[in-house]
Amino acid sequence: MAAMLQRPEHQVAGHEAGAGKLGPLIDGSGNFFKPLDPSDERGAHELAFYNSFYSDQRVPRSIRSSFFPSFGGTKILPVPDSPDLLLPHLVLEDLLHGYSNPCVMDVKIGARTWYPNASEKYYAKCLKKDRNSTSALLGFRISGLQVHHESGRWKPHRDKVKKYAVTEVRQSLRQFVSKNPDATDPDCALASLVYGGSNGILAQLLELKSWFEDQTLFHFYSTSLLIAYDKGGKAARVKLIDFAHVIEGEGIIDHNFLGGLCSLIKWVSEILADAKTAAGPTDPQLLERAADLEAAAGLTEPKVAVGPTENGIH
Amino acid sequence: MAAMLQRPEHQVAGHEAGAGKLGPLIDGSGNFFKPLDPSDERGAHELAFYNSFYSDQRVPRSIRSSFFPSFGGTKILPVPDSPDLLLPHLVLEDLLHGYSNPCVMDVKIGARTWYPNASEKYYAKCLKKDRNSTSALLGFRISGLQVHHESGRWKPHRDKVKKYAVTEVRQSLRQFVSKNPDATDPDCALASLVYGGSNGILAQLLELKSWFEDQTLFHFYSTSLLIAYDKGGKAARVKLIDFAHVIEGEGIIDHNFLGGLCSLIKWVSEILADAKTAAGPTDPQLLERAADLEAAAGLTEPKVAVGPTENGIH
Repeated sequence: MAAMLQRPEHQVAGHEAGAGKLGPLIDGSGNFFKPLDPSDERGAHELAFYNSFYSDQRVPRSIRSSFFPSFGGTKILPVPDSPDLLLPHLVLEDLLHGYSNPCVMDVKIGARTWYPNASEKYYAKCLKKDRNSTSALLGFRISGLQVHHESGRWKPHRDKVKKYAVTEVRQSLRQFVSKNPDATDPDCALASLVYGGSNGILAQLLELKSWFEDQTLFHFYSTSLLIAYDKGGKAARVKLIDFAHVIEGEGIIDHNFLGGLCSLIKWVSEILADAKTAAGPTDPQLLERAADLEAAAGLTEPKVAVGPTENGIH
Repeated sequence: MAAMLQRPEHQVAGHEAGAGKLGPLIDGSGNFFKPLDPSDERGAHELAFYNSFYSDQRVPRSIRSSFFPSFGGTKILPVPDSPDLLLPHLVLEDLLHGYSNPCVMDVKIGARTWYPNASEKYYAKCLKKDRNSTSALLGFRISGLQVHHESGRWKPHRDKVKKYAVTEVRQSLRQFVSKNPDATDPDCALASLVYGGSNGILAQLLELKSWFEDQTLFHFYSTSLLIAYDKGGKAARVKLIDFAHVIEGEGIIDHNFLGGLCSLIKWVSEILADAKTAAGPTDPQLLERAADLEAAAGLTEPKVAVGPTENGIH
């Protein structure tokens, strides 16, 4: 069993397993194992969240299956590079299982990552990060991303991503759906396929928003949205990950997460609208290209899909 | 002219005019004059906002007229108790003009009142207030309220209101629509009339929310919603007030205001739903009482209106 475990190749943020360092592992069969470090209360907290979340009948089944990794309890596993050390791991769904060339973005949602009753030390640390990143201003920040394109994989260094200013975050949301992500003017060629359509990212974000306008069970501090699609726009999905700082909602909506989510939705909508405007639904050449893209992706949903334009996307 | 000016009787929050203190004045004809203290940059900032807001064609006319006080420029007026001192005043709409017995609530929206680029001193002051009030937790706080009922006016001291905990804020939203606001179990007798209906507070809050999901022109820090109705539920309205800390949106939605607004909407919805459940639309006695209330208020909109119930409202 242990021989089959490996580090997730497409991880863009969070702890990475390495020499003397704990990090998640995957088994290549759809399982994602997240170590529960006994010296860190966050692991126990995240386990408690999964147990609570998956047993709470007030969470709609569709929300659970659409937006959360499936959860299979815990499993004792050897730690890589220290095979004599056994540690319990959360057994979660490998959200990128089956993707051949995943494009992935980790977006930490919420203008603030500190929560009421946090220790003063943790509070001060979070507050500083929120003010020094785009969180406070924008309601979210990007923790990491990678984009596969024809000539390979584009993955900016996570330290660089963490320092992104507002304009760079906006640019990232365009790069994420571009065939030339590292160009000065990314083409947003996949915007309609990935962000648009009734099963696209925007539709999923809007469904999630509806739940957050109503649910008062949990407040998701420091939780990320993992946004992913496979080459050509296939299987675009949005999942919540990282629940080490979730607290009970106590009858109040999670206005911090909801506000940040609405901010993200606004920008995704704008990029989508710009892409549609730039392409125009009546240009025969672009429609043909769009049809090709749709066929390549096995999709029929999007009504408008765009290719690169000479004018670029604004 | 000066002889006709008086202090607004129904002010529930903010500066009050008094000996040696500047505060707003009304003329009894629908005008509200807010002094522009030359020693305080907030006045100049608020004037700049009004000028900018009322000249910006991107603000829908319906939003402007529904949710903002009308603005008539500035006017030089003598200061009460110091008639030799002349000061410029903002000429605004007296939002309670024509109300005989207004019930009024001032709700400061947003989990945080500090804004990016605020001075460290102002930032620290706001942060402390946000954490010590319900703002951080709930996304809004109540700065003051008054409720008229049959035996007079109930107006808790504003210092007490400012210290309200979450449960007391929730209770206030019930007291605000009760005929017995100072009872242990307020009856929410006017919930359907005031909060409900196609012209009620909830409908107005939802319309405002739609705009905030889209607008990226302004970020309204430390801005309040003035929620008011007259005796019997008449003329329920929601207006934004206090714009001394509004900054430009720069293409980002005001996720801080929007999140708090959604939190308020959730609680108002719940109180309304509870009131409807408690009353039940089929009880003939309550329907008759509701019809009386509607007639008294000159309303025909609400489909369900409730009277007090023995079980109270939860």
